[in-house]
Amino acid sequence: MALEVVNLLEKLKKFNQHWSPRVIAEMNDYQFKLAKFEGEFVWHDHPDTDEAFLVIQGKMSIEMEDRTVTLGEGELFVVPAGQRHKPFADQECHVLLIEPRGVVNTGGAGGELTADNDLWI
Amino acid sequence: MALEVVNLLEKLKKFNQHWSPRVIAEMNDYQFKLAKFEGEFVWHDHPDTDEAFLVIQGKMSIEMEDRTVTLGEGELFVVPAGQRHKPFADQECHVLLIEPRGVVNTGGAGGELTADNDLWI
Repeated sequence: MALEVVNLLEKLKKFNQHWSPRVIAEMNDYQFKLAKFEGEFVWHDHPDTDEAFLVIQGKMSIEMEDRTVTLGEGELFVVPAGQRHKPFADQECHVLLIEPRGVVNTGGAGGELTADNDLWI
Repeated sequence: MALEVVNLLEKLKKFNQHWSPRVIAEMNDYQFKLAKFEGEFVWHDHPDTDEAFLVIQGKMSIEMEDRTVTLGEGELFVVPAGQRHKPFADQECHVLLIEPRGVVNTGGAGGELTADNDLWI
């Protein structure tokens, strides 16, 4: 729970690491996380939960098994639970993620891009 | 569930009514809703759930029993469950609300500003 007003752009100045979401607020058992994407992430899924992406700055895409969606600033997309997906961004893109507390960025895929899932800024 | 990319500014063009949230996407049993605030809402609370406000355009405030917070564009605030609050906006403000499906805008307060809680756009 963040009991103060959270300014997204101010929070984005506080970290630079790509593919490493930072928690900025909680709502019930859900978390709001900021992330910086650049390059390609790994294919993965989250079997038990949907995952929401809202682009704050820049442009990103999410490759799925049947299609690829592209999101610009102010665009929201929800990846359904269990659906394999691979986010990518040609240039750095800043994203607000909303998902239940405890979700790991790489789902069950693991690997070197797996980040701590409860880093607050 | 919205299976397509949702552009917030495009969706905001689709309604004008104040204090009447419109659902644009779902994530598990949560909903993303856009709302246009202008003037004063009613004091109310949501006993069973936190409620998140993210300002998309404009400026708004939330009066609570112990303080008042003001949110500008790109600012997020989570009102804790059970905490009485009264949103207000001197000029029209566009807000993204995130909360569980089924939450009524006026909580248990009722009154003429009570809106349908599942209007999709």
